[in-house]
Amino acid sequence: MQVLVINSGSSSIKFQVFNMPSAAVKCSGLVERIGLENAVITYKVNGEKHQKTTAIPNHKIGLELVANYLLDEKVGVIKSKDDIDAVGHRVVHGGSTFAKTVLIDDAVKTKIKDLFNLAPLHNPANLEGILVAENIFTKAKQIAVFDTAFHQTMPSEAYKYAINDTFLNEHQIRVYGFHGTSHKYVTEKAREVLGTENSTKLISVHLGNGCSITAVKDGKSIDHSLGFAPMNGLIMGTRCGDIDPAVVLYLMDSLGYSLKETSNLLQKESGMLGLTGFSDMRDIEEKASAGDKICQDALVMNAYRIKKFIGSYITALNGVDAIIFTAGIGENSDTIRKMVCTDMDFLGIKLDEEKNAVRSGEIREIQASDAKVKVMVIPTNEELEITNQVYELINS
Amino acid sequence: MQVLVINSGSSSIKFQVFNMPSAAVKCSGLVERIGLENAVITYKVNGEKHQKTTAIPNHKIGLELVANYLLDEKVGVIKSKDDIDAVGHRVVHGGSTFAKTVLIDDAVKTKIKDLFNLAPLHNPANLEGILVAENIFTKAKQIAVFDTAFHQTMPSEAYKYAINDTFLNEHQIRVYGFHGTSHKYVTEKAREVLGTENSTKLISVHLGNGCSITAVKDGKSIDHSLGFAPMNGLIMGTRCGDIDPAVVLYLMDSLGYSLKETSNLLQKESGMLGLTGFSDMRDIEEKASAGDKICQDALVMNAYRIKKFIGSYITALNGVDAIIFTAGIGENSDTIRKMVCTDMDFLGIKLDEEKNAVRSGEIREIQASDAKVKVMVIPTNEELEITNQVYELINS
Repeated sequence: MQVLVINSGSSSIKFQVFNMPSAAVKCSGLVERIGLENAVITYKVNGEKHQKTTAIPNHKIGLELVANYLLDEKVGVIKSKDDIDAVGHRVVHGGSTFAKTVLIDDAVKTKIKDLFNLAPLHNPANLEGILVAENIFTKAKQIAVFDTAFHQTMPSEAYKYAINDTFLNEHQIRVYGFHGTSHKYVTEKAREVLGTENSTKLISVHLGNGCSITAVKDGKSIDHSLGFAPMNGLIMGTRCGDIDPAVVLYLMDSLGYSLKETSNLLQKESGMLGLTGFSDMRDIEEKASAGDKICQDALVMNAYRIKKFIGSYITALNGVDAIIFTAGIGENSDTIRKMVCTDMDFLGIKLDEEKNAVRSGEIREIQASDAKVKVMVIPTNEELEITNQVYELINS
Repeated sequence: MQVLVINSGSSSIKFQVFNMPSAAVKCSGLVERIGLENAVITYKVNGEKHQKTTAIPNHKIGLELVANYLLDEKVGVIKSKDDIDAVGHRVVHGGSTFAKTVLIDDAVKTKIKDLFNLAPLHNPANLEGILVAENIFTKAKQIAVFDTAFHQTMPSEAYKYAINDTFLNEHQIRVYGFHGTSHKYVTEKAREVLGTENSTKLISVHLGNGCSITAVKDGKSIDHSLGFAPMNGLIMGTRCGDIDPAVVLYLMDSLGYSLKETSNLLQKESGMLGLTGFSDMRDIEEKASAGDKICQDALVMNAYRIKKFIGSYITALNGVDAIIFTAGIGENSDTIRKMVCTDMDFLGIKLDEEKNAVRSGEIREIQASDAKVKVMVIPTNEELEITNQVYELINS
């Protein structure tokens, strides 16, 4: 069975075709700059990369171009559109409605639309991807995998804010949590390694473009650093993470920022970009190691906040078996991992510097031999998690 | 030497006269409802309480009535206004300017005024108290003790927000921290008990009308839960504590709240009041123990947030020698202390239930005999700390 996984953004479509149940990747690719004259479609198959620059006015045309590649006589991977048995869609916000992966019907689409106001940048693009895919892959089952679903197991003390319940009940204001597909994937991998016969207490640190951290007990998310929107918690590339709400009010009341300017400032011009002028951690690490004090301080601050979340989740779990680093920065930055795990021996956390310095795409343990807590690097794979969930749903 | 300590609020003046260096309290009292026809002045001396209801149009009249009591032939404690050698003023916001207690001169007054926009509810009243006291106790030294001063030792990774440095340098947006006088007082008491020959790692939990938590290393504040304003961090009587900034934006953008309404909601109608309808912890505990689920859940949430801060500060300190509970709730609620310290054995925190249940005004240890971390209850005394600092400054 062939599963097409789609991650549809406002001006992009990421895609991958899996052969299930082997989970072999048949091809993958990306459509970028949808809406522009010089849009780009990239298609990878058998280690080869094909690329075309062309006008792609909308998602429909974009996905049709993807279908053309999939069906291409020379580089294609299917004979007919009907060979795609299922399309798995990443949907960012499932609100409190979706605690798991679902088959998409009209009711599901309506609910994804109802959640537009909670994820105005993501859900409209996700729904557009669904509508377009339904029209192209007419025989395929369309399935939605939600970024928030994994966190629906959080207890109320973790998901509630200390405001009147009307805001929760009437306006759905609560902690949702994001990156759920990634946190679920890496913590399940960790549980395979650790064995699950005993209860497991895991802290998963996802450091990518967005950053978040999750406390996972016996496979269930019990707390998470991102909240109502993917904006608070850890310091991100351009997002501020935790900040006193009084600052938000002060920006508007005393400094004359409009709502839109405040939102832009805190989401697009803050975080590592605000602190250093760079949003890419590689640039910042490079500058820091060349002696740039501003970049050094920003890294210290970034790591300090991760440390503090680890501490708070250790109290939430009353212990921790393993800390998992994942996503672009988590998998590749031994600098950040080292900064986070230094001076943490009271908690039993201690790195083996040599193991930490190794780069690989493999699951690996990097704690010191006398450390009480395991520290793992686990490459995330959201597309694989999506196709697995699609396969599981269809066969359940 | 006689020291008058004044804590001047927008419509109140708390006062206390100390004989120094013995620190014997000669009298104390409170002026309430300044500005109203039915204002009340309460004066306590020798275990007796005197009270008068009268019109007190402003702070000047209020403090003159205080002076009258102090000078009263029957119940007074001084013969002449000049017998007051120094007046110690609590000032809430010292910004980044004041890292310690200072003698008040014109420059200090100007700086307290410059900070009005950072503490609009407190600093104007504090300055008013200073100006009035200067006119009445003309021979006394006027001294300012700042709530923020103790936290000026925080490192930049703790006091900075992840926004551009312009906001710090031009607009003074940073973590200041509050309740510094209380945190300093109780952590110094703890250091006396613990001995300070070794380094000390303390976490001070101040739970009163406002709530905050501080990590103190070797007597210095290194991190603190309240930020730019006294609004975030722990859940307070009417203040929300930590909340996703996206919620603040959403309230205004999608729910039509004005800035003022948002500020009021999050500071005056949230926290325990928002969650339960009651702001006084005693009411909430009573309801919870009578089976009220809403109050039970709110207590769980409140304690859960304190727990998480304790965990995060343990990582900041890489350990902890003692956790200190202080202020109204911290000193008197064995329920909250128990909820916070339950399921914390991974960190070496464990209460002795009997010791925890004891009520007293004494410094006491309440950890279990096999606990690695001490848990202490230390009654705070901000007035005593202020008079001590005043005395120290004058004699230095």
